[in-house]
Amino acid sequence: MTKINENFLKLQDNYLFATIKKKEREFKEKNPSNSIINLGIGDVTLPIPGEVVFSMKRASEEMGKVEYFRGYGPEQGYEFLIDKIIKNDYSDRNIDLRKDEIFISDGSKCDISQIINIFSRDNKISIMDPVYPVYIDSNIMDGRTGKYLEGKYDNIVYIPCVSDNGFMPKIPQEKVDIIYLCSPNNPTGMALNKKELKIWVDYAIENNCIILFDAAYEAFISQSDIPHSIYEIEGAKKVAIEFKSFSKTAGFTGIRCSYIVIPHELKCISSLGKEIELNYLWKRHQATKFNGVSYITQRGAEAVYTKLGKKQIDRNIKYYKNNAKIIKNGLEKLGMEVYGGINSPYIWLKIPNGVKSWDFFDELLNNTGVIGIPGVGFGTCGEGYFRLSSFGTKEDTVEAIKRIRKYFNSKREI
Amino acid sequence: MTKINENFLKLQDNYLFATIKKKEREFKEKNPSNSIINLGIGDVTLPIPGEVVFSMKRASEEMGKVEYFRGYGPEQGYEFLIDKIIKNDYSDRNIDLRKDEIFISDGSKCDISQIINIFSRDNKISIMDPVYPVYIDSNIMDGRTGKYLEGKYDNIVYIPCVSDNGFMPKIPQEKVDIIYLCSPNNPTGMALNKKELKIWVDYAIENNCIILFDAAYEAFISQSDIPHSIYEIEGAKKVAIEFKSFSKTAGFTGIRCSYIVIPHELKCISSLGKEIELNYLWKRHQATKFNGVSYITQRGAEAVYTKLGKKQIDRNIKYYKNNAKIIKNGLEKLGMEVYGGINSPYIWLKIPNGVKSWDFFDELLNNTGVIGIPGVGFGTCGEGYFRLSSFGTKEDTVEAIKRIRKYFNSKREI
Repeated sequence: MTKINENFLKLQDNYLFATIKKKEREFKEKNPSNSIINLGIGDVTLPIPGEVVFSMKRASEEMGKVEYFRGYGPEQGYEFLIDKIIKNDYSDRNIDLRKDEIFISDGSKCDISQIINIFSRDNKISIMDPVYPVYIDSNIMDGRTGKYLEGKYDNIVYIPCVSDNGFMPKIPQEKVDIIYLCSPNNPTGMALNKKELKIWVDYAIENNCIILFDAAYEAFISQSDIPHSIYEIEGAKKVAIEFKSFSKTAGFTGIRCSYIVIPHELKCISSLGKEIELNYLWKRHQATKFNGVSYITQRGAEAVYTKLGKKQIDRNIKYYKNNAKIIKNGLEKLGMEVYGGINSPYIWLKIPNGVKSWDFFDELLNNTGVIGIPGVGFGTCGEGYFRLSSFGTKEDTVEAIKRIRKYFNSKREI
Repeated sequence: MTKINENFLKLQDNYLFATIKKKEREFKEKNPSNSIINLGIGDVTLPIPGEVVFSMKRASEEMGKVEYFRGYGPEQGYEFLIDKIIKNDYSDRNIDLRKDEIFISDGSKCDISQIINIFSRDNKISIMDPVYPVYIDSNIMDGRTGKYLEGKYDNIVYIPCVSDNGFMPKIPQEKVDIIYLCSPNNPTGMALNKKELKIWVDYAIENNCIILFDAAYEAFISQSDIPHSIYEIEGAKKVAIEFKSFSKTAGFTGIRCSYIVIPHELKCISSLGKEIELNYLWKRHQATKFNGVSYITQRGAEAVYTKLGKKQIDRNIKYYKNNAKIIKNGLEKLGMEVYGGINSPYIWLKIPNGVKSWDFFDELLNNTGVIGIPGVGFGTCGEGYFRLSSFGTKEDTVEAIKRIRKYFNSKREI
């Protein structure tokens, strides 16, 4: 009989969102008159900027006319978009990239889950804990992990990021080959500054490691010493692949567009010791497993870089950042320990009094109707934390914080 | 140092299209006044039907309005599209499918190259020869093939499809686990009728194999005894995954939408002998490695199933089929052996007098300016054949055949 990929059986059932949904439903049944405010959601709520919509409509029309119709596009993406990316996201920051070092794709999740295909299964990976689960799950499927025990997999090096170390990943003691770094971080909201990121780049150069640098939340950076690209650090082109997305920047979660950067300098070795460019391997990978992003989507992404597009996007980001400020300030006024929200759309709350993530979830839902994400859902080091998102509406955010403050203030008075 | 996936080094450099481009360039330089007609191309040329364009424009507008905006969609696809697929492509053919047996994706190439991820590397695969190279390359990358020798890889069972056996794949002698079937076939244009397909389904049931049934060219079927879905054959739900695409049906090569069907009945085993649903494994796969298809694209695909959309698509398919007829009739009048073109957009020509594929390519280009694809580019059994496509314009097709007939007729007179 045909055999399955056994590695899939090592995947843990992820009940995080299913459990949240279930608890939400139960609350609604018991409290039909109380409204729920969901600040758990990692999805954007503001509509797509007008310039992008205009551009996608025009591209749709083009596809209906024989003189403008385009069939299969270049697998790596259209030059009109790659040129804008290079100019705006790199040249303007004094980073030189060649056109064929950019690969347009239909989402960072696809990129970051598939990049592992070009690496040997013998490589040891390290991740930050708490972490975006896709990093781990894609490695499980590919057979790069061992047994699961107490929330952790064998053969993965976990780097704890907790309040005691300011959520700063520390260089692992053990030798690793591939390092996942996410900055600004999901879920903790932490962002590495240039000095901190340089430590990692230098380490990777010295130890021949690869850094997979997930910068999906780059648009939310406020502070000037936080790099928008890992290539702002000298030598990074030799060791890092960078992942960027239009999802959170321009509200593309439902439109699907992202890109990755693989510089030609970036090389790994074959078993015979031959150096091979990762750019070449990924090009082969995409040529076999991908057929490009919709022309309409790419024209939409191009509009993100127009003068008006930038203005509209800037306004949206400011809106979410203001929500983040409302959450952060509101919780701080309650004397709570709050992280993130400055260079990130996420607020990472250290739950007071050692209450566990799920207990806090229940308490918050039952007493305020507000939903967040239990930190433990992102890994064992997320236990005792709680993620709140700034992607809701301003009205909901204000109301949620009002309720939370009212509840915790009244709790104190008792 | 970080190690690469060694399997990538087994991939052969595919110079097929690069060589064609090079020869085209050289011809142009030598014959600046002669026009080239490309009938090699597998890409469509007619624009997207008006109904689809209208629908995508409306969806783009919706994305710009807060009350209609949609972020992350369901990974498996929107119900509005899945419902239309089930009704039109299955219920109307008396095939019952559940909603969660359909997975919408951004292209058949992505689906068919990634499906292999859910299977053990120990499974033996069989492919038809000649073949769409993605089937093989995705298995090479995943480590399921051995050495490359004389156009073939060890550990793949090749099923020759040549004129002597009517291009009909024969059940392999050797035991295999996963069988790739493409019908209507690219490149040969052959299509399996119900009786012929039943032999494969029965074989797979008896021998516990899985059939990966690529039906990307289904819209071109003319003859009534050719099944549009493998599930028209009794028992197929127990053994087959079906791949369908909007690319050739509705001109979506640049818009990107496809779907696959994995019935719940379809099971494989773990090493402990436990039966596991492939539907469950693929759901996990997509949840980790995919984030759904653009809402705009899915609204476009939905319009394919409207009354007017169907009419417009039908007109386009007829246009290409008429081109196929022009090519087929024109070559037959020259006394050539011509296959395909009835249930397929491709014409598969047996090159006269034992001339080899690339020699024929050169002869045709240099004497008529017409470009096709040398059959050997699809595998060793394609040697001596030549693929011509009906996806050009009618004018080009007529002119190409006129030139070909003129040349071969004059050649005879000499």
